[in-house]
Amino acid sequence: MDKWGIDKTDTVALDTQDNALVLIDQTRLPGEIRRIRLTKVQEIREAICRLQVRGAPAIGVAAALGMYVVASRYETGDPKVFREKFLQDKETLNSARPTAVNLSWALTRMEGVLQKEPEKSVEDLLQALKHEALRIRDEDIEVCRRIGENGLTLLQPNDGILTHCNAGRLATVRFGTATAPIYLGQEKGYNFRVFCDETRPLLQGARLTAFELQEAGVDTTLICDNMSGHVMQQGWINAVLVGADRVAMNGDTANKIGTSVVAAVAARFGVPFYVCAPTSTIDPATAKGSDIRIEERGAEEVTELWYETRMAPEGVKVFNPAFDVTDHSLIAGIVTEHGIARPPYEISLKEILARGQADGQ
Amino acid sequence: MDKWGIDKTDTVALDTQDNALVLIDQTRLPGEIRRIRLTKVQEIREAICRLQVRGAPAIGVAAALGMYVVASRYETGDPKVFREKFLQDKETLNSARPTAVNLSWALTRMEGVLQKEPEKSVEDLLQALKHEALRIRDEDIEVCRRIGENGLTLLQPNDGILTHCNAGRLATVRFGTATAPIYLGQEKGYNFRVFCDETRPLLQGARLTAFELQEAGVDTTLICDNMSGHVMQQGWINAVLVGADRVAMNGDTANKIGTSVVAAVAARFGVPFYVCAPTSTIDPATAKGSDIRIEERGAEEVTELWYETRMAPEGVKVFNPAFDVTDHSLIAGIVTEHGIARPPYEISLKEILARGQADGQ
Repeated sequence: MDKWGIDKTDTVALDTQDNALVLIDQTRLPGEIRRIRLTKVQEIREAICRLQVRGAPAIGVAAALGMYVVASRYETGDPKVFREKFLQDKETLNSARPTAVNLSWALTRMEGVLQKEPEKSVEDLLQALKHEALRIRDEDIEVCRRIGENGLTLLQPNDGILTHCNAGRLATVRFGTATAPIYLGQEKGYNFRVFCDETRPLLQGARLTAFELQEAGVDTTLICDNMSGHVMQQGWINAVLVGADRVAMNGDTANKIGTSVVAAVAARFGVPFYVCAPTSTIDPATAKGSDIRIEERGAEEVTELWYETRMAPEGVKVFNPAFDVTDHSLIAGIVTEHGIARPPYEISLKEILARGQADGQ
Repeated sequence: MDKWGIDKTDTVALDTQDNALVLIDQTRLPGEIRRIRLTKVQEIREAICRLQVRGAPAIGVAAALGMYVVASRYETGDPKVFREKFLQDKETLNSARPTAVNLSWALTRMEGVLQKEPEKSVEDLLQALKHEALRIRDEDIEVCRRIGENGLTLLQPNDGILTHCNAGRLATVRFGTATAPIYLGQEKGYNFRVFCDETRPLLQGARLTAFELQEAGVDTTLICDNMSGHVMQQGWINAVLVGADRVAMNGDTANKIGTSVVAAVAARFGVPFYVCAPTSTIDPATAKGSDIRIEERGAEEVTELWYETRMAPEGVKVFNPAFDVTDHSLIAGIVTEHGIARPPYEISLKEILARGQADGQ
């Protein structure tokens, strides 16, 4: 526990003494482990935009806790004014990033609290928002643990595992999604050998995944994104585990740019490719991958390192999509907290979502 | 022409007034266009090791011109001593890099000059070496032009082309190999849209290919290596053109790390994948890709930018193969100066080599 009473490995947390959102600033890793405290809606939006918090589940929890933190500072006793301010700030956060479904999913849950309690006082609404935000956080921790348990059934001791980007502890509150089976296997002495794609342009694999796995004592090897073919050709990889930013109902999966490349290479070498994601990432409103809007980001992420060291000629045109869509045909299974969906996904994903409903979630 | 009487766009040249090897220092690009003059065998070996000159054909020409430059400084009139020194220095250069066949191919041609003329004086041997080195250079220019002409038959105006690493002008003396069809098409107003993979870890695509294509006025877009899947999914790519460091007799091709990844992605999207390479890159002594030794390079290329800015956690394990092997089944054609080899390559590559012999090369 640190000075704010927060578990020191938690990526996203609520300082309950002072109602502040506390984040590990991921743009500083791995050089510096620095926590930031945020209380204003624009600060929180900015932290999401600047990737100080990133990873779909962590963004969702940050938005939920953040909405409570912001709402706790509304200086009004009028529930109607409170609601109006809430809806306005919710839209501000909701527009921070377009691709990850968890952001709007978490914010919609928070808004639902207000709709469920039309007669309540501002004080009661705040208590209900706090309760819901902490529930979203606790569910994230529990969901990741269950993804880890389900994912571990797909793996064997001494397996070689390749992962792309960071769907790790730092993308959630704890455990991670794609890393959850790795951490749970590590506890059981499975002795995995993990290869991390560095994940250009922002190097989340090098800076975050290699960092957190190394910290946890996992046998970790860093490679460039273009080395997956060679590594699989050597026969070193038994499974690919990646996270997801949005899963369509046919199984098409949007995740960090380059995921579809790893999937194509894995298919070629007969390596099973698994998506590890909470059911909150499965979007009933998205039928197929081509319906998913892909965020494009600035050229300087590609042409400059840390926005300072130039790596490409001045004036060169750059295309910088932040995500890509992996076709469902390349995915061997989608590992969720309610079990593993297998093809055909049109059927299995509905079953998984129904199982979640039945569990009262 | 510059102060050394050299065409200012030539990547590798001989200063004939002063017998020096002149190279564009490619580690300085794109920030600075700087020529270096080398006369000592260790300097030349170092320039090859440090990638101041890189690209299989350019390395071959640099080694040939370099051997002449070095031999011209032997202070002996005894042909036997001259030969001994030559063989020793040849081995020094030959050990500079293990994967590209052109290095040993060019050095073997230079040694052949000495074997063909057993009775000659040192002065005559030197003249013969100079003649052979310049012939290797002139052949490189002509070979690249012919690769360009042959490759251009595979393309249509307004095609989208993806290329990986630098098999460009800067990898040869002029024109390049994979870029030769692009430059020749550009002259004819073909209006190609070229996507350059940045090519981690050393960013030859960003620093060199994007640079030289932009200089030539080609419509050039820089992407990260992991974006090829997304770009092809958009339908923007009609052909992939890459170079080669060594082609085995079954068509398996060693080229810059990541080439096999692009090939797997291209296969998935039905985009034809072409290797553009001089016949000197086809190695009759290599039956298949698994016979090719893959150079591994230092971790700091991956973990540090320009050996100064840290991008990954301290102490992380790194795997850094410089090349990979693309399976022949993924290659639609191998474009050489003597025509385009098509599958089955066991037959077509022998025919191409025989055509080269018939042309008296």
